[in-house]
Amino acid sequence: MTIGEVDERVPSAPESTPAPGHTPERLAMFTDAIFAIAMTLLVIEIKRPEGKALKDTASLWRFLTHEWESFFVFVLAFVLLWTVWRRHHVLMDQVVRLNRAFTAWHAPLLLLVAFLPFPTALIGEAFDNPLAICVFALSEAAVLICEGALKEIAHRTPVLSEHADRAQVRRGANSSWAVGAFFVVMGALAWSVPGIPVAWLLAPFAAAYGGALIERLRRQL
Amino acid sequence: MTIGEVDERVPSAPESTPAPGHTPERLAMFTDAIFAIAMTLLVIEIKRPEGKALKDTASLWRFLTHEWESFFVFVLAFVLLWTVWRRHHVLMDQVVRLNRAFTAWHAPLLLLVAFLPFPTALIGEAFDNPLAICVFALSEAAVLICEGALKEIAHRTPVLSEHADRAQVRRGANSSWAVGAFFVVMGALAWSVPGIPVAWLLAPFAAAYGGALIERLRRQL
Amino acid sequence: MTIGEVDERVPSAPESTPAPGHTPERLAMFTDAIFAIAMTLLVIEIKRPEGKALKDTASLWRFLTHEWESFFVFVLAFVLLWTVWRRHHVLMDQVVRLNRAFTAWHAPLLLLVAFLPFPTALIGEAFDNPLAICVFALSEAAVLICEGALKEIAHRTPVLSEHADRAQVRRGANSSWAVGAFFVVMGALAWSVPGIPVAWLLAPFAAAYGGALIERLRRQL
Amino acid sequence: MTIGEVDERVPSAPESTPAPGHTPERLAMFTDAIFAIAMTLLVIEIKRPEGKALKDTASLWRFLTHEWESFFVFVLAFVLLWTVWRRHHVLMDQVVRLNRAFTAWHAPLLLLVAFLPFPTALIGEAFDNPLAICVFALSEAAVLICEGALKEIAHRTPVLSEHADRAQVRRGANSSWAVGAFFVVMGALAWSVPGIPVAWLLAPFAAAYGGALIERLRRQL
Repeated sequence: MTIGEVDERVPSAPESTPAPGHTPERLAMFTDAIFAIAMTLLVIEIKRPEGKALKDTASLWRFLTHEWESFFVFVLAFVLLWTVWRRHHVLMDQVVRLNRAFTAWHAPLLLLVAFLPFPTALIGEAFDNPLAICVFALSEAAVLICEGALKEIAHRTPVLSEHADRAQVRRGANSSWAVGAFFVVMGALAWSVPGIPVAWLLAPFAAAYGGALIERLRRQL
Repeated sequence: MTIGEVDERVPSAPESTPAPGHTPERLAMFTDAIFAIAMTLLVIEIKRPEGKALKDTASLWRFLTHEWESFFVFVLAFVLLWTVWRRHHVLMDQVVRLNRAFTAWHAPLLLLVAFLPFPTALIGEAFDNPLAICVFALSEAAVLICEGALKEIAHRTPVLSEHADRAQVRRGANSSWAVGAFFVVMGALAWSVPGIPVAWLLAPFAAAYGGALIERLRRQL
Repeated sequence: MTIGEVDERVPSAPESTPAPGHTPERLAMFTDAIFAIAMTLLVIEIKRPEGKALKDTASLWRFLTHEWESFFVFVLAFVLLWTVWRRHHVLMDQVVRLNRAFTAWHAPLLLLVAFLPFPTALIGEAFDNPLAICVFALSEAAVLICEGALKEIAHRTPVLSEHADRAQVRRGANSSWAVGAFFVVMGALAWSVPGIPVAWLLAPFAAAYGGALIERLRRQL
Repeated sequence: MTIGEVDERVPSAPESTPAPGHTPERLAMFTDAIFAIAMTLLVIEIKRPEGKALKDTASLWRFLTHEWESFFVFVLAFVLLWTVWRRHHVLMDQVVRLNRAFTAWHAPLLLLVAFLPFPTALIGEAFDNPLAICVFALSEAAVLICEGALKEIAHRTPVLSEHADRAQVRRGANSSWAVGAFFVVMGALAWSVPGIPVAWLLAPFAAAYGGALIERLRRQL
């Protein structure tokens, strides 16, 4: 049996009312809240100027340009979380009923999302420290692994609506695995290559090309 | 009359529209928001490295390993809140109408949930201090007592849908009482046994075995 | 014309679809979010122990008992916001359509709710400072005045469902005015009487007796 | 072809179920959460008095009056965000289906909203620093440009319900452009005119008159 063939034999979620705690709406709302708060807390990690740095225009300009890494990682972490949230929105619009595995994988996903402001603060303050970069990259990779797991579960167990495009959900999982692998590699490269966080802007390419590569590999298994 | 017999005589909530302020959806959304914010604020309590600790890889590594208790209690408090939220989701999916007692018990529940980042910060900074451990354990026990009270009220007063499994709601209350008792005992043990927070990983066993024990005791009353 | 007679001549909100931006659900959700965040941010205002205060049980105990005012005002502010939220829930369950005045009064209400963590921090740190107490009391009074205004608008303009109990909405406005007046008086008394915040526990009596008094006065006008 | 004529040829969104991830409700809820958190975090940027400033009434009064700029910008930023949220509510009540462009423009909008507490803190601490004022004004302008873009997209692509008043959506875009231009000018004026933030209270006039002016210009194109 190849992974590609599993599709046809997994039933869609039955149409009857979900069991208590298996209604997807509230899990979606809770996920929204955690993502929104984590994304908004990122701004707290940017250092505020104090004392002399506020005195005149030149001092403040020097402070702001000195802190450019903080602004860069704020935007980076915000955009990464936004794209994960968007894909969660797409996924949940096709989910009509939760099951134990699908719900359980939300716990590490949301924990890591809530944790992300910490590694963001780390690289904001120590942009050249390989360990800081590595912690951020591995945290982000872990978020993507949870995302991939959610999509695999959605693809293999009966949580999707019968109208859902199951092949696309699997392709989505492939992209998550690809970007996850990309960030693991980035975490490793941080130890020898400087300026790795700038390379993270390439993550969308990892999603597109890496995802297609994984799809081809899975079909050949 | 035994507690076990109450079930059959409590009517389900009537099907007509709930009175103003007794619609369960908005209470569920508000609860979601408080839980999500409390869980995301936990990360703020983890100390950020400063100055020298950011200088090089070795310093940062020393800082991060020195702060392992902060990471441990972050995960612990997040998971505890997640499980309470999940059980609240299960409960609310069966509630079709609020009443005064059911709503009123949400006030201490949410207050304690919003308070939890404080004791979490305490044990993160003073992992070996029995008082810090005790404050956390008793706060968590108080959360579980509120949760148990909600389930007892749901079991005894007409808030549940007629399709709800009332026996399971009572078993859920038993688990809450059992884990609540577990944390009270842990708060007491903290004064003589070191490393109590690690033992909190056993809470799921308290829920399973303690809950079954309480169920048996209640049937014999 | 007396105020009491207005009731019968104000039409209920028409049943057709509300105009864009006049749907009550999203305003309710936004209000939930602001209240939930403000209530959860209150815990940030409680000082965390540092250095020596964490060293041993006795030091931590001294710190926690020394900070009892912070805990007291945390509970106080949380409960005050909870009760305003609860009454907003009751009100909004009867509102089927917004209008400009009803929506506009939410701006100062939510601004004051979002601001409340600041005066809460003030009295937490300076429990005996009359100015701190006065700022908190007047902020709380302003919250209640906005709440009263919302209920008056609901009572006088067509936002309520035809099934709404309009007399009860007016009685609710009376309670808001009464508790608002109570806090204004408390803000004044703070300058001559010590320990005023403890007297705030009497606010529910102000709501009950003061509200009934205002109702009688309005009928006689 | 003039811009004004585009209207009639853009179809309304089709009535069938939106594609996964194109349901507007969840985007609206997520937007609510980001706005609510950003607006509530503003209060954290107000400095808390410490030590001597809390000692007696006179010291605290001096502290509070010294910090008046913080209170002013808190109110200003809160009200600006509130008005953008209100207009988003009005817009989304007419949107029945998302598309890629409409969703994508939410990313910079929400990023800027989440960022706003930072420039608010800047002008709260350095009310006379032209650079601080300029950063705030340009951030606010950027928020309004994203808002204008959303409305243009709503006006030109099939996201609106067939009952939506498309001319009014375009007039809304005009107001966004006008206030955005107002803030760009204010950011420039900050370098030569003192007290610019006080002039921001004129933003509503910019919306009304500037919006009408842009409408006239567009009709003549």
